[in-house]
Amino acid sequence: MKLGTLRTNSGFVVVAVVESEGEQRFLPLTQIDPSIPNSMRELLQQSNGLEKCRAALQRGLQTELRIDGTLMAPIPDPGKIICIGLNYRDHAEESGMDIPEEPVCFSKFGNSIIGPGEAIRLPRVSSKVDYEAELVVVIGKAGYEIPKEKAFEHVAGYCNGHDVSARDWQIGKPGKQWLLGKTPDTFAPIGPWLVAADEIDDPHNLELALRLNGERMQTGNTREFIFGIDEVIAYISQIVTLQPGDIIFTGTPPGVGMGRDPQVWLQPGDTVEVEVSGLGVLSNPVIGPQ
Amino acid sequence: MKLGTLRTNSGFVVVAVVESEGEQRFLPLTQIDPSIPNSMRELLQQSNGLEKCRAALQRGLQTELRIDGTLMAPIPDPGKIICIGLNYRDHAEESGMDIPEEPVCFSKFGNSIIGPGEAIRLPRVSSKVDYEAELVVVIGKAGYEIPKEKAFEHVAGYCNGHDVSARDWQIGKPGKQWLLGKTPDTFAPIGPWLVAADEIDDPHNLELALRLNGERMQTGNTREFIFGIDEVIAYISQIVTLQPGDIIFTGTPPGVGMGRDPQVWLQPGDTVEVEVSGLGVLSNPVIGPQ
Repeated sequence: MKLGTLRTNSGFVVVAVVESEGEQRFLPLTQIDPSIPNSMRELLQQSNGLEKCRAALQRGLQTELRIDGTLMAPIPDPGKIICIGLNYRDHAEESGMDIPEEPVCFSKFGNSIIGPGEAIRLPRVSSKVDYEAELVVVIGKAGYEIPKEKAFEHVAGYCNGHDVSARDWQIGKPGKQWLLGKTPDTFAPIGPWLVAADEIDDPHNLELALRLNGERMQTGNTREFIFGIDEVIAYISQIVTLQPGDIIFTGTPPGVGMGRDPQVWLQPGDTVEVEVSGLGVLSNPVIGPQ
Repeated sequence: MKLGTLRTNSGFVVVAVVESEGEQRFLPLTQIDPSIPNSMRELLQQSNGLEKCRAALQRGLQTELRIDGTLMAPIPDPGKIICIGLNYRDHAEESGMDIPEEPVCFSKFGNSIIGPGEAIRLPRVSSKVDYEAELVVVIGKAGYEIPKEKAFEHVAGYCNGHDVSARDWQIGKPGKQWLLGKTPDTFAPIGPWLVAADEIDDPHNLELALRLNGERMQTGNTREFIFGIDEVIAYISQIVTLQPGDIIFTGTPPGVGMGRDPQVWLQPGDTVEVEVSGLGVLSNPVIGPQ
């Protein structure tokens, strides 16, 4: 089941995305079950929200129901955007960093979230904007001090994520905090939709690819995680109560622009595609300062 | 004008707080002007929200109107919690850090927000929880690339803030990111209310005090800022669109527990008071892991 947030003439709605023979159909779940909310975050707060969506999807498939609109970020307003740095062994090495002994955690603010097709806007004050393909984990159940062996119970699903990074603001600033390099407006594309967790056989064996203007720049597999999804959830929830609709960027594999010779930085007119196996393709154009 | 968020039997409401002869009266502004929202964040999103509150307060003072409840964090759900580190010359020195050449920015998540009287809960996994008294700036008008000379137009008001900090999670972790040391649940007390900006003569000349169990631990004045409020707003808004209801913790003066000999860490049973001149007193008890 693929759940998307659709912008329609009358506002945002949660839809099931049905793909068949290259055609995409958006199924308006609230028209089938009015108890399904139109906000993905509110939907995830309902303990049986995904089950209701699944039932509505099955009923909807028997009908001709559809709704038109544009897919937005599946969760336009995540409560927390938690990011893990240096979580692929090879990427830590290409960045010249030691393999961390604990997850490296940083954050983005909500202003960074955009959806599929929306433009990544380069800030006027950065000339070193880099790409990072990531698997994003979507939390579906609140928890604090979650044991590692129960961590996956708190995962609603997954989506592609792009951790756009202004290296000249991330690295080398006083205090060494990455925040401002990571959180410019539009620097967290996610989508195109959320795939329910039970449809991903093994989240620790997913291929990642990033293409810049069609050219493959990053290749990876989540089996190369230094810290697995369950370890990350257990680690963070020692500190922070996780809530439905929180999202976790899980780190990026090798191939980023900073690690290349010559280095590669995003330019206006570029298009970046992130593709994690089973999660569709997240494509975003790049524009200059506006 | 002091605006608070009150928890009542029927939910949260925005009130004006009127103090006279030691007695506190909460004036329910929506009963006077129903167009005033019950959410402080929504109120700040209205361009004339504070003006309407001021008019409602004047009318309310002619009446016996009042409402009972408990003051919560004035903004229970800030869109962004932006924090400035090392922003007092003396505190940077006591922390053994260089005076930064640009503002050091980090963040907390919304789970950290609590209001006056609510308990700071020590995490099971930290034994070095420190206090930091701060002036908090509340954004009242959206902006991107805000010029320094227009920055104060974007400030709705001020409140006390307490940047509770788990030093063993802030410092010395792989990747050097402060986030997890700063964002444990309950680690961002704010309040007791928001004071409208036009009632603060000079935000760059405010006394700060922090008392631990009645004993003065921190003393400072915002004239010691390395980066003024206008500089900080201009700096951050080069990267991030600021929105009404965003808050900025502006850094802490000398006297933190980490810099003492012997070092002082918060313990269950402690009470911490933060007092910035003109902003009331923010008092919070400390409890152990639950």
